[in-house]
Amino acid sequence: MAVYTDVAAEDLDVFLAEYDLGALVSMKGIAEGVENSNYFVMTESGPFILTLYEKRVSACDLPFFLGLMDHLAQQDFPCPTPIKDRQGHSLKELNGRPAALISFLNGVSPRRATAEHCAGVGRAMADMHIKSAGFELTRANNLSVDGWRRLAEGCHERAGEIELGLCDEITGEITLMERSWPRDLPAGVIHADLFCDNVFFEGSTLSGLIDFYFACNDLLAYDVAIGLNAWCFENTREFNVTKARAFLHAYRQVRPFEQAEVDALPLLARGAALRFLMTRLFDWLHPVDGALVTPKDPREYLAKMRFHRGVASAADYGLLTS
Amino acid sequence: MAVYTDVAAEDLDVFLAEYDLGALVSMKGIAEGVENSNYFVMTESGPFILTLYEKRVSACDLPFFLGLMDHLAQQDFPCPTPIKDRQGHSLKELNGRPAALISFLNGVSPRRATAEHCAGVGRAMADMHIKSAGFELTRANNLSVDGWRRLAEGCHERAGEIELGLCDEITGEITLMERSWPRDLPAGVIHADLFCDNVFFEGSTLSGLIDFYFACNDLLAYDVAIGLNAWCFENTREFNVTKARAFLHAYRQVRPFEQAEVDALPLLARGAALRFLMTRLFDWLHPVDGALVTPKDPREYLAKMRFHRGVASAADYGLLTS
Repeated sequence: MAVYTDVAAEDLDVFLAEYDLGALVSMKGIAEGVENSNYFVMTESGPFILTLYEKRVSACDLPFFLGLMDHLAQQDFPCPTPIKDRQGHSLKELNGRPAALISFLNGVSPRRATAEHCAGVGRAMADMHIKSAGFELTRANNLSVDGWRRLAEGCHERAGEIELGLCDEITGEITLMERSWPRDLPAGVIHADLFCDNVFFEGSTLSGLIDFYFACNDLLAYDVAIGLNAWCFENTREFNVTKARAFLHAYRQVRPFEQAEVDALPLLARGAALRFLMTRLFDWLHPVDGALVTPKDPREYLAKMRFHRGVASAADYGLLTS
Repeated sequence: MAVYTDVAAEDLDVFLAEYDLGALVSMKGIAEGVENSNYFVMTESGPFILTLYEKRVSACDLPFFLGLMDHLAQQDFPCPTPIKDRQGHSLKELNGRPAALISFLNGVSPRRATAEHCAGVGRAMADMHIKSAGFELTRANNLSVDGWRRLAEGCHERAGEIELGLCDEITGEITLMERSWPRDLPAGVIHADLFCDNVFFEGSTLSGLIDFYFACNDLLAYDVAIGLNAWCFENTREFNVTKARAFLHAYRQVRPFEQAEVDALPLLARGAALRFLMTRLFDWLHPVDGALVTPKDPREYLAKMRFHRGVASAADYGLLTS
């Protein structure tokens, strides 16, 4: 939610001169994206988003992220398209930072998602899983089960500040996950961060997905598990089975689940909750000085993880096999 | 440079339903304006700026600010126009804050102003001074000479942290200003904060003035003095007489100076520098916890004040009487 790198209009003029978009008409630093600096940029050709990639995004991952958006957009998947300059480059540099100009997407993120929103997200996620199939680059998910023990080390010492015994609970979960994590489910490119902020709607119609900067290769059903956590709980942390049913059924109308995916869903959802619990816990215990974002309460995902621990089967999520 | 009040899309939908602007298409919190929360809002009718007025802006001043913009825009002065809802109201409430939707102005603020930019600002300032003449509301300038002693009290104790003897220097300046400040120059509505951030250009053509939230009734030449300080020094704090000449000559082509205004200009410029020195000093010595804006170095205006102290007459600013 910040603009970390300040861009002068004169420097943007020079940058834009390498594209066929006409002159700069307006620019505004926007509070979107936690990791990068984003500008709303209007040229004589229309509106765009300019992103400057800050330190938390690894520069060598950018061809994957931008290539994925390009690959999806070419198949009419609703997501931002990186704009190419006259040399055919979309990954550029501005103010010493890697930078890209991407297409502007209409729509707004709902604050209070409805079941209709959840269905839209399910359909779009399945569509993305199918359409990313032909994408040739790959990127490992360093925030999946193999990275969790290392992730936990960053908060072990002080996890007890959140709740007594939390450190042991996390270690126990990781041990279980390492032992039980499915390895042979359908895999592909997943969004891996499809939270409400990253989905735009016009009215109740989904208009696009943004922020592909956690996208990676992993189990498709793990993306579904992340979506269940992100979209199907109330702000009061209660699970909403109506939303979950809408989300899951819309997904499988586009891409049917294999039985093994359905069976694994409670474990994957529990693991996804654990992953966000740990990253939020880390950000909570290590607030960045001068950060513009208030760390989110890790207890939200602790509650979700415990909920999934009590789930007997995907039927509890409203997913009936028939 | 911040978004202090978070607005949910759903709440903005309800807000917009009171206008004839069609449905919400996009909203982005923007990093513009130090005092308020600003959103770029696109509806089916086009782009707008939504401003939520935060605590530092007094709610009882808002009819003056919005009325002034409306008054100026009606005379084709390039500035944002407050949009009226179906009831004819432009000052509304959103998320418990006073709020207004205003027209979107094309253009960008130059980071490195040229003499041509300065001429544009001079012309526009004079135009504003003339066109605001018929505006019926008034607002005292609580940051002019009568308020400076009180302003200085907020930094007296610690001014020495910036430079030894600064407290005495400021007190001496205030005493001189209180004794010498002209009282009978042409007066009217002034912008009072016409810094580079608040002027938009398309190329080198001025497209509009924004941020009227310091506007007030005061000496017109005091606005000119603020402009001299804001536009006619280099980043290295050196005075640029070419820019000053361009600024002043463009101004007087639209509104000729009275001789008394020309004579008073060095004193007014010195006073204007003192005023920004004191407010910056206050912000520097009292940084707000969690503020999203880095306080600006008060020494910039200390250097400017000392420059004006050495000015013999307006001829030093490039303003020849002939």
